Amino acid sequence: MEILSKLNVLTKKLQSNICIGLDPIPNYMPIDNIFEFNRSIIDKTHDLVVAYKPQFAFYEAFGFEGLKALKETIRYIRSLSKDIIIIGDGKRGDIDSTSAAYAKSYFKFWGVDIATVNPYMGIDSILPFLQYENKGIYVICRTSNPGSKDFQDLETNSGEKIYELVASKCADISSNGNLGFVIGATYPDEIRNLREKFPQRSFLIPGIGTQKGDLKSSVDVAKNVNNNGFLINSSRSIIYASKDPKRFSNIAREKTLELKNQINDVLISG
Amino acid sequence: MEILSKLNVLTKKLQSNICIGLDPIPNYMPIDNIFEFNRSIIDKTHDLVVAYKPQFAFYEAFGFEGLKALKETIRYIRSLSKDIIIIGDGKRGDIDSTSAAYAKSYFKFWGVDIATVNPYMGIDSILPFLQYENKGIYVICRTSNPGSKDFQDLETNSGEKIYELVASKCADISSNGNLGFVIGATYPDEIRNLREKFPQRSFLIPGIGTQKGDLKSSVDVAKNVNNNGFLINSSRSIIYASKDPKRFSNIAREKTLELKNQINDVLISG
Repeated sequence: MEILSKLNVLTKKLQSNICIGLDPIPNYMPIDNIFEFNRSIIDKTHDLVVAYKPQFAFYEAFGFEGLKALKETIRYIRSLSKDIIIIGDGKRGDIDSTSAAYAKSYFKFWGVDIATVNPYMGIDSILPFLQYENKGIYVICRTSNPGSKDFQDLETNSGEKIYELVASKCADISSNGNLGFVIGATYPDEIRNLREKFPQRSFLIPGIGTQKGDLKSSVDVAKNVNNNGFLINSSRSIIYASKDPKRFSNIAREKTLELKNQINDVLISG
Repeated sequence: MEILSKLNVLTKKLQSNICIGLDPIPNYMPIDNIFEFNRSIIDKTHDLVVAYKPQFAFYEAFGFEGLKALKETIRYIRSLSKDIIIIGDGKRGDIDSTSAAYAKSYFKFWGVDIATVNPYMGIDSILPFLQYENKGIYVICRTSNPGSKDFQDLETNSGEKIYELVASKCADISSNGNLGFVIGATYPDEIRNLREKFPQRSFLIPGIGTQKGDLKSSVDVAKNVNNNGFLINSSRSIIYASKDPKRFSNIAREKTLELKNQINDVLISG
């Protein structure tokens, strides 16, 4: 089964659309050791989530220490469960031979299931990421930050916006099962727009919590015809909900459960 | 002095506008050890070039072995010369807090002088890379690959193309000394266009050689009013000019000299 189809099956089975972003940030972490921090979070949440998403930047900022912790973290998640999806968030993209090297790094070295990809360099920069069986990508379309309006939201003389063209050109080269879109919770109108055009695609939705995207309106417009097909990513509002070294992982579990229930409430009521 | 101004001084002093791309690719390398390969190339070329540009993807594809070789390579270049500019080519870009982590990785951990940045996520995703004194960035505008037409070349309803808007919005937030543009040698009309609009910006120009960009037309349109202000990047056509383990570094030197002279011929005749 293609990876994004597998993800949909898992969300149904676990009644969870949650992806936790594992983003180690020095001043926020309640304990210093990156792997131990991640492990504590994972131990308390892996029965509640369908995916973890390490943001590579935060590991790279620590140098080799961070990269080793990332490797250990991925290995640890795999040791707990063969089902949980790991999303490598690096937003890579380059000319074809270079994207092929990035794809090798994501899927062969790091061993993630899904990679995030930046489309700016065009379709030939995306294709190499689609050459791996049982792997998939999320292409960033309309990101959660304020600056996403600068280029993604510009209207071209075809009448379509850049993020819409990114989505439609990506849809042309891939199945629903191996390519989804990143759309920020901060832009529910754009989520609705893409859901209408792509009723079955998987959406990865960051931006609730710290970035102030609205959960209810995002879920309302993000769900597909099967009440499924999206992941809500939460990082800081779960993993940094408490700075208490003894309690942060329990609090992270509480926050995850709370988010899971909030999402399910919207799905049931909708 | 700001880093891109320093780069211009160095190109004048050495009469060289060459950046060598250090891109270890398994099937192309005449010897297996990545660092030894790079060291051989660097030993024979460091008096002829102003910059080296390791493409991070190719190191990441080797996992930790590659990343260690990258670190050793950067250290080795520094040990030979304090002048040579090191350009970290990773084309990163993300929401502000994440870009800040990437900037830390590029400039603090890897210790490169200049980083390449992807603008798709907007100006707030670029600003964190400009917070480092004596460091700078090249923002990808119109890249050398065929797919760069897919989004970068689209005309918006302001009448400007995306790559032009990327350039002008980036110019608004930065000085000539800390932000330059990546424009492929495969698109000389676009190089001319940006040179007319930005007479003093530094341009990093990949795409000659393997990608078949034309050197003469690129240099003709890329040079600024001072016959300066651009770097020609060459990777595969220099470092993989020979597969002979005993001769590849000497051949790389010959190819570098040849390219240096070709560029200077265009500059003198123009």
